[in-house]
Amino acid sequence: MKTLQVALGERAYAIHIGSGLVGDPQWITPHLAGQQALVVTNETVAPLYLDGVLESLAGIRHHHLVLPDGERFKTLDTVNLVFDKLLTERHDRHTTLIALGGGVVGDITGFAAACYQRGVAFIQIPTTLLAQVDSSVGGKTGVNHPLGKNMIGAFHQPRVVVADTDTLDTLDDRQLRAGLAEVIKYGLIGDRDFFDWLERHMDALLERQPALMSEAIRRSCQNKAEVVAADEREAGRRALLNLGHTFGHAIETGMGYGAWLHGEAVAAGMMLAARMSVGLGWLPAAAAARTEALLRRAGLPTTVPASLSAARALDLMAVDKKVQDGRLRLVLLRDIGEAVVTADFSPGDITATWESAASDAAATTATPQGA
Amino acid sequence: MKTLQVALGERAYAIHIGSGLVGDPQWITPHLAGQQALVVTNETVAPLYLDGVLESLAGIRHHHLVLPDGERFKTLDTVNLVFDKLLTERHDRHTTLIALGGGVVGDITGFAAACYQRGVAFIQIPTTLLAQVDSSVGGKTGVNHPLGKNMIGAFHQPRVVVADTDTLDTLDDRQLRAGLAEVIKYGLIGDRDFFDWLERHMDALLERQPALMSEAIRRSCQNKAEVVAADEREAGRRALLNLGHTFGHAIETGMGYGAWLHGEAVAAGMMLAARMSVGLGWLPAAAAARTEALLRRAGLPTTVPASLSAARALDLMAVDKKVQDGRLRLVLLRDIGEAVVTADFSPGDITATWESAASDAAATTATPQGA
Repeated sequence: MKTLQVALGERAYAIHIGSGLVGDPQWITPHLAGQQALVVTNETVAPLYLDGVLESLAGIRHHHLVLPDGERFKTLDTVNLVFDKLLTERHDRHTTLIALGGGVVGDITGFAAACYQRGVAFIQIPTTLLAQVDSSVGGKTGVNHPLGKNMIGAFHQPRVVVADTDTLDTLDDRQLRAGLAEVIKYGLIGDRDFFDWLERHMDALLERQPALMSEAIRRSCQNKAEVVAADEREAGRRALLNLGHTFGHAIETGMGYGAWLHGEAVAAGMMLAARMSVGLGWLPAAAAARTEALLRRAGLPTTVPASLSAARALDLMAVDKKVQDGRLRLVLLRDIGEAVVTADFSPGDITATWESAASDAAATTATPQGA
Repeated sequence: MKTLQVALGERAYAIHIGSGLVGDPQWITPHLAGQQALVVTNETVAPLYLDGVLESLAGIRHHHLVLPDGERFKTLDTVNLVFDKLLTERHDRHTTLIALGGGVVGDITGFAAACYQRGVAFIQIPTTLLAQVDSSVGGKTGVNHPLGKNMIGAFHQPRVVVADTDTLDTLDDRQLRAGLAEVIKYGLIGDRDFFDWLERHMDALLERQPALMSEAIRRSCQNKAEVVAADEREAGRRALLNLGHTFGHAIETGMGYGAWLHGEAVAAGMMLAARMSVGLGWLPAAAAARTEALLRRAGLPTTVPASLSAARALDLMAVDKKVQDGRLRLVLLRDIGEAVVTADFSPGDITATWESAASDAAATTATPQGA
C-alpha cells in the first residue's frame, strides 16, 4: 500500500493506493464527519463493491443510492436525486457522502456534497483507472449542461481518496484504455521520464500487471497532487492538466455525452494538440509521432469523429472554461514533458488541425470501440 | 452615503448604503471581474431599476435575465435558467453576475455564481429592506428543496453590496414590515441598545423616514458583518443569526413557499423562541412581552398559522441545518440582546410552545396580511 498526501493546508488529504482496501474500515472511518453516511454508486459498481463498503460502515447510520451508469446522467437532475435521498433520510450537515465508482459518480457525489446544506464532507473510492489517476484527486466536482461539459460545479476537496487496485480487475478493456489516456497525459504535460517508462511498460499495463499498474497510478497521482497543491483553483499551472480536454470536450458534447468515453476523447484531443503544436512549429514531428504511437499502443483513438465538422467543434470549444474575454486558450506542447497554456494561435489553426486529422482518419479506422 | 467593510481577508468587501446609488457606475465598475456581466432580476424589479443598472454597464458586454417573482421560484430549475442564459450568451469564467432584487433574486444569483464554471464573481444590489439588512450580506446563497428551505447552496461572498435606500420607496408595506423582522432580530440577538432604539423609532421607520431607515440598515449590516467576519461558515456564533429561523422555515415550508413572507415567518419564529425561552425559565416574561409588542407595532405576526399542527411543524424542523446527529438545536433567548444556541430542551417543549401559541392565536387575528 502506498500513500500520497495532497498538500492543501487545512484541506489536505491522503490518497491510499493498493490492494484489498475497499471494505476495510480503517481507510474510511477516521474521515467520517459524524455518525451518518450516504454511499452513492451506480448500477454497474453496486453488485461488485457496495456490500463491502456498507459493511465497513456498520457502526454508523448509513444509506446508499444507486444511480444509472453513464456520462449522460451527469446532470443537475441526477444531483437532485442525491438531495432527495439525503433529505428523505434526514441527513444533517455532519453527514459524509461516499462516492463509490468512476469519474461520473465522483463528480456528481462531490458536487452534491459541495451544495448539500452549503457543504458536507465527502470521500472518494474510485473504481476505474480514470477516476483513480485523475478525477478523484483535486476537488473538481460538477455536472454537464447540454451546452457544455462540466460547466456547473464546485471545488470541493475529498477527505480521503481510497484507490483499490483490485477494482481494476473488473474493469472492461475499453474503460482501462480510457484511463490510460489520462496516465499518458501526465507524461506529456510535465514528466518525460514517466512517458519513457510508459513506452517501456505499455504492454504490461494493458495486461494489468498489478505492480506496474500500482506504480502508474502512484506516479499519476503524484503528478496531479503536486499541481493541485500549487494551484488549487486553477489560477495558473493547473490549467496544464487540461491537455487534450478542450478538443476532447468538444468531441464529447458534439457526439452526445457517453458516445465517446472521456478518456477516449482526451486521447484524440491530446493528439490534436500535438498535431497543432507541430503545425505551429513548436513541437518536433518526431515527438508527435511518439505520442501517436503510444496512444495507439494503448488502443486509444488519435483522430476526430467523421460526423463532427471542424466548424461545429470550434463552436463547441468557444464555451470552454479556459475562454477569457472571448479569446480561447489551449494547452499545447513544446516537447514531450513540456506543455504550455497559450492563446497564441488563430481559429484557422484549429480548423486546419481538425480537418487534417479528419482527412487522415478517412483512410483509417480510429474511432473508439463501441462508439 | 455610509460604507461598512465585511472583514474576510482576501474575500473582504464593502457595503455601500445610501440614496441614488443604483445606476451610478462608480459603485459597480471597479468590482467587475472582466468585460462581461449578467444582471439577474425579477419581473417586479425590472421595470423600476433594470434600465439604470444596464446603463451603468454601458462600457462592457452585458446581458440580463428577468425571473418570475416569488419564493416559490427559488429552485434548482430557476438556477438552471441562469446557466442557460450564461452559456447561450457565452459568458466565460471571468464574467460577473449582478443580483438586482430582493432575497430570492440574491440567493439564486449568488448560487448560480458559485457554481457556474466552478465559481464566478458576483455583486449584490438588494432592493428590499430584508435583502439590504440580511440576505445580501454574508455570502449565504442557495435554493429551496420541496423537503426543506435553503437545503441546497453554497457560501459565496459578493464583491460589493450596493444598498440604495431609494429603492425602499417602491416597496409595499408588507415587504417593508417583513424586512423590519430581520432588523428587530439584530437587537434581540446581541444589540440591546439597538432594540431600545427600535422601540423609540418604530413609528418613524414604518413611515420610511430616510435618515432613520438608513441608520437601521447601517446598524443591522454592522451587526451582521461582525458576526460573519468572526465565523464565515457558521461553525459557531453565526448560528445566532438564525434566531426565529428554525420555527420560521417550518412555517414557510409547511404553508408552501411564498404564502408567508420569509420575514413574517421569522417574526412568528422569534416570538415562538421567546415563548419557549420563557417556558424553560430562561427569559423573563417581561422581555417576551416587549418583543411581542415591538413585533406587533411593526405589523408582524407573532403566532403560528392555524392550519399547521405542532406535529407537522416538529417534523419539518427535524431537517433543519442545525440538526446534529439527530438532535435539533435552536436559538433561544436569555435576555433581549442575548441569544444562545442550545439543544437543552425536549421535543415536548417545542410542541407545548407551538400549541400554546396556536391557542392564543385562535382568539386573535395574527396571520400575515395576504397569507
